[in-house]
Amino acid sequence: MSWNTFGRILRFTTWGESHGPAIGAVVDGCPPGLALAEEDIQPFLDARKPGQNKFTTQRNEPDAVRILSGVFEGRTTGTSIGLLIENTDQRSKDYSEIAKSYRPGHADYAYDAKYGLRDYRGGGRSSARETAMRVAAGAVARQVMPEVTILAYVAEIGGDAIDPGNFDADEIARNPFWCPDAAAAKRWEALVDEARKAGSSLGAVVECVATGVPAGWGAPIYAKLDADLAAGMMSINAVKGVEIGDGFGAARLTGEENADAMSPGEDGPEFAANHAGGIAGGIATGQPVICRVAFKPTSSILTPVDSITREGEATQVRTKGRHDPCVGIRGTPVVEAMMALVLADHKLLHRAQCG
Amino acid sequence: MSWNTFGRILRFTTWGESHGPAIGAVVDGCPPGLALAEEDIQPFLDARKPGQNKFTTQRNEPDAVRILSGVFEGRTTGTSIGLLIENTDQRSKDYSEIAKSYRPGHADYAYDAKYGLRDYRGGGRSSARETAMRVAAGAVARQVMPEVTILAYVAEIGGDAIDPGNFDADEIARNPFWCPDAAAAKRWEALVDEARKAGSSLGAVVECVATGVPAGWGAPIYAKLDADLAAGMMSINAVKGVEIGDGFGAARLTGEENADAMSPGEDGPEFAANHAGGIAGGIATGQPVICRVAFKPTSSILTPVDSITREGEATQVRTKGRHDPCVGIRGTPVVEAMMALVLADHKLLHRAQCG
Amino acid sequence: MSWNTFGRILRFTTWGESHGPAIGAVVDGCPPGLALAEEDIQPFLDARKPGQNKFTTQRNEPDAVRILSGVFEGRTTGTSIGLLIENTDQRSKDYSEIAKSYRPGHADYAYDAKYGLRDYRGGGRSSARETAMRVAAGAVARQVMPEVTILAYVAEIGGDAIDPGNFDADEIARNPFWCPDAAAAKRWEALVDEARKAGSSLGAVVECVATGVPAGWGAPIYAKLDADLAAGMMSINAVKGVEIGDGFGAARLTGEENADAMSPGEDGPEFAANHAGGIAGGIATGQPVICRVAFKPTSSILTPVDSITREGEATQVRTKGRHDPCVGIRGTPVVEAMMALVLADHKLLHRAQCG
Amino acid sequence: MSWNTFGRILRFTTWGESHGPAIGAVVDGCPPGLALAEEDIQPFLDARKPGQNKFTTQRNEPDAVRILSGVFEGRTTGTSIGLLIENTDQRSKDYSEIAKSYRPGHADYAYDAKYGLRDYRGGGRSSARETAMRVAAGAVARQVMPEVTILAYVAEIGGDAIDPGNFDADEIARNPFWCPDAAAAKRWEALVDEARKAGSSLGAVVECVATGVPAGWGAPIYAKLDADLAAGMMSINAVKGVEIGDGFGAARLTGEENADAMSPGEDGPEFAANHAGGIAGGIATGQPVICRVAFKPTSSILTPVDSITREGEATQVRTKGRHDPCVGIRGTPVVEAMMALVLADHKLLHRAQCG
Repeated sequence: MSWNTFGRILRFTTWGESHGPAIGAVVDGCPPGLALAEEDIQPFLDARKPGQNKFTTQRNEPDAVRILSGVFEGRTTGTSIGLLIENTDQRSKDYSEIAKSYRPGHADYAYDAKYGLRDYRGGGRSSARETAMRVAAGAVARQVMPEVTILAYVAEIGGDAIDPGNFDADEIARNPFWCPDAAAAKRWEALVDEARKAGSSLGAVVECVATGVPAGWGAPIYAKLDADLAAGMMSINAVKGVEIGDGFGAARLTGEENADAMSPGEDGPEFAANHAGGIAGGIATGQPVICRVAFKPTSSILTPVDSITREGEATQVRTKGRHDPCVGIRGTPVVEAMMALVLADHKLLHRAQCG
Repeated sequence: MSWNTFGRILRFTTWGESHGPAIGAVVDGCPPGLALAEEDIQPFLDARKPGQNKFTTQRNEPDAVRILSGVFEGRTTGTSIGLLIENTDQRSKDYSEIAKSYRPGHADYAYDAKYGLRDYRGGGRSSARETAMRVAAGAVARQVMPEVTILAYVAEIGGDAIDPGNFDADEIARNPFWCPDAAAAKRWEALVDEARKAGSSLGAVVECVATGVPAGWGAPIYAKLDADLAAGMMSINAVKGVEIGDGFGAARLTGEENADAMSPGEDGPEFAANHAGGIAGGIATGQPVICRVAFKPTSSILTPVDSITREGEATQVRTKGRHDPCVGIRGTPVVEAMMALVLADHKLLHRAQCG
Repeated sequence: MSWNTFGRILRFTTWGESHGPAIGAVVDGCPPGLALAEEDIQPFLDARKPGQNKFTTQRNEPDAVRILSGVFEGRTTGTSIGLLIENTDQRSKDYSEIAKSYRPGHADYAYDAKYGLRDYRGGGRSSARETAMRVAAGAVARQVMPEVTILAYVAEIGGDAIDPGNFDADEIARNPFWCPDAAAAKRWEALVDEARKAGSSLGAVVECVATGVPAGWGAPIYAKLDADLAAGMMSINAVKGVEIGDGFGAARLTGEENADAMSPGEDGPEFAANHAGGIAGGIATGQPVICRVAFKPTSSILTPVDSITREGEATQVRTKGRHDPCVGIRGTPVVEAMMALVLADHKLLHRAQCG
Repeated sequence: MSWNTFGRILRFTTWGESHGPAIGAVVDGCPPGLALAEEDIQPFLDARKPGQNKFTTQRNEPDAVRILSGVFEGRTTGTSIGLLIENTDQRSKDYSEIAKSYRPGHADYAYDAKYGLRDYRGGGRSSARETAMRVAAGAVARQVMPEVTILAYVAEIGGDAIDPGNFDADEIARNPFWCPDAAAAKRWEALVDEARKAGSSLGAVVECVATGVPAGWGAPIYAKLDADLAAGMMSINAVKGVEIGDGFGAARLTGEENADAMSPGEDGPEFAANHAGGIAGGIATGQPVICRVAFKPTSSILTPVDSITREGEATQVRTKGRHDPCVGIRGTPVVEAMMALVLADHKLLHRAQCG
């Protein structure tokens, strides 16, 4: 079936296809009395917006969000918040050939196998266009928890990683890659441009750090903070892996190496390290919550790949539309949004049970 | 808050602490008319059972499961299935010192920060003992989908990986490590024994493969098959990372390398590769569903680690109880169980919408 | 908190205020491949639409629904269906005095007590305008179960009941009261007109009958068909009571009188009576599902009633806006819609577990 | 499917059949730090317990509850609370004939139509025995909200109602009918005894009043306090109708009669009446929350009733087992429990969103 709702207390539901008239979201369970206007949401959408430089798809959408309900005189009312973005640059013609055959690596075949039909225009519902509404909902989530700061950045493109020694948070907004390492950003420019020109694509790793999360958020056993983050991140288009803290690296450490020793601090314990990524037993420890997310390379490439038609005949597919050479780049604001949505939900969950 | 239920249609709810009188689960939404007896569940519990060799904790529990409801004359009735295991070997005394201070790497501090109190006996609810009930529930899930076969094995311990060329499924049950590579199993024997003797611990990577999953299972957008797997796996104690298919490796491939080309086959398409791990757009493609799970090293080690007391004073903690030198080993049947639970739930979800 | 979603498999979420720019709904979990167009939904909205005669509010809304997603080439795709109706006749000025004081019988005080603020324009989210989206969602639900026919009608206004002996289904659409008894309709014309002129209002009882529901739909114990119907009906504005079958009348019968005797029939049992209203143990028996719903009189009346201001001072409130003298009349299509939504959801729930 | 969980934040899940080895519940989401022991639960179970006098079934169960998890050193830990009651007096033999044919008015036929098989021993899962676990869970819910007092009583048996002028809360515990009117209790003794001797049965109406519920609890639109109460009450065995406040009586009032006028009071408004039953727009107004529940007469009667066998042949059924001549009597503590469970859940829901 389809399941377009995420969250437990702060829930959002999205709708809309890549080439339909509009996309939208309903954010439910938001506390009343929070300041909220379109201006609080739009900057995050602008950050994700396509067509901003040659490293992202040339589809050109203003992505102007409208708040249609749930806000009165500039404050949330506690009722459901209706958000809507009109699709303006749809160019359905680009996709006419796709109707007949399945693009390898895309969801085309799987959707057809599931539903017996599919909206083939730009991937329909399976398009990453849906993530615009996550970014919008994420902006609402941020209003719910002003105590938390979230920062996501690209840590690796095409296997070329940033040097942690070069980390500069201010650098992130200065380059088109959300890259905190100026030297890496320079290298990536060549790398991504080369892939783009070759009609190829590259994968990426995005890291996300949330500071200010108080110890105690999280809901064992099956709504663990890390489990909800894993679900949220893995639900993003093109994501194939999620790590908390050291992640797979922790599997290569000994117990002594991996232990985050504690000592008395001003406000609760001080930790000697954060291998755990700020989560133990599914509950926040008060350290920064750290998540790493692997994006596969964009499946839409100019190189022809063997495939089949809807009738099961052999064919070759070469995706000509407008595509990102590295979806991980535009995925970065989406990772931030999902982090915000999971944390804000857990703030409310914690308050429900623990007052 | 706490959230002890997993699943959407086939749901299970667990209860019980490491050192309480019993642990249990309720499995709800199971189809009627399936053959189910304690003998269908017990073998999976025996596989997970502690105390079987020197590489796992010496806690000795028979883990005999009882079906208390939902089955009549050997068949499921469609009503809620009550499962119960009595705790017999609790030795609460081992843990008396733990009451006063927090074990680094454990959930002790986080639980206390959240709830203001905790059951410190053996970790209470945060103990991996809870996973016994997942294994029991997983055995029910297997009955729901006889068409699917699930196999999990340890692919790496302490950074020492199996050689895929040596893969032999029959080997898995022949060694205490669920290792499909006889040569690796031999190396791990020394490795784990050394860690055990040193009072240290090791991490591990577990792989899980499900064959027979038909194309179409999965529920976009927020109950994607991979998102639910990520949540389920990340909710297992000590897990810090989850990958689907090539996972983080996919982030280092180009679009051409990562494409799973399709050609006409007997029953649906044949795929030239399975980088996607059998899932596209959150929906099964008909290929084997492949998941990799990273377990951190056991946090309970004999080496003293700096910590604090409940009163916030500096202390050192050295965990003397009975522990696994590598929790990933006993986590293997739990990974299998979670795979079964997610897939069986999605079988029913798919049927609900698509008939 | 707020909770704007109803259903388990076929779920819908509504948003929008009485005097906001638009109202909307997202219908999720709908099976793919069903024929669906705006023309399938509009007639049900037209039936509920205000301003059609002097017995309903003179607010004049075209209530033209747009399908914004989830349908492709005339068929549902299985993805979330976005529905939207623009508010065109809002006249916010009518309500300016209401901002300062609470209308007795309305939700004004309760919303303010809960949220600390409220959208006072026409009741904001608490307005019955929200039910337009239930009617729209209900039209989708009908497409899900062509085997079921639903008929609601007004059985009583202001204590004046229909005569079952006069029941004529064809009569229902012929009068402005959804009344199946021509004689009663005539009486009600005078009754309701008198109340309207006096600035008073009347309560009503609506009955709803669903035929074609197969034995077996329903989900014990906490998603019983009757429990879900009770929740759905009680969630409609102004509803204060729900009965299944004989309802409170059954409390006055003996066991012999209340027994629905069975005898062998062509397709399953024949029943000698239907005191049970088609539901036993929360599961459909195959008989018509019968539900009765009590609507209180409209709270908006011209007679001044004692009340308090937001500051807690004594005042009197007299509601001048445009209102229905009997909300039960326009509630009838909403009752039908909720019946459709509950039954369609249970069709899918049944299929999920029982194939 | 089956759905054995109720609630949103404070959730409980029940399992167990009338004649299985035990019945149980898991209460999840309970706040930590509350005093809870078996002694807090047992009195409520004793009140519901069968076999206490000739007016209730002679089945003799001690119904001794055990807390198996979620409580440590006398306090709730915030984790899932496992509750268990062993079935001791099962006498399966009484029901051997029932296996072959369907008892009219019971869920026998509906369960079989749904699941294709059923546990026929004492009604299996459809037995009112399940309600014992609601009473146990309800006792936990009471600990969650010490500010609220709940009182249920029988207001009518076999059509003979109490006289409100005779209402004496102290009388309720003094007679076997939970009757607050001593004169009515005397009449009912003859009435119920007569029905019992005749092998017949009677219906009843139960009223439930909760005082101390603060204005603001409740969750519009689809988790309205009254909608959740309606669902909870309607899910109780044998219930066919639910009213809030004046219920169906409100449908016979004019708007002036039905208005609950407000005036300034010490703590919030004073209300001149409570036609609304303490709920407006799905949210508590601060007045007592009032609910009325209709129980049909027990379906198990000695008078033979026409029915069919599993093979579809005509037969007659006469239920010989041990049964209540009026299930509404023993339903009274269950109504109280459901009121407690709904209100406690809404306390936590309100806190989640509104702090």
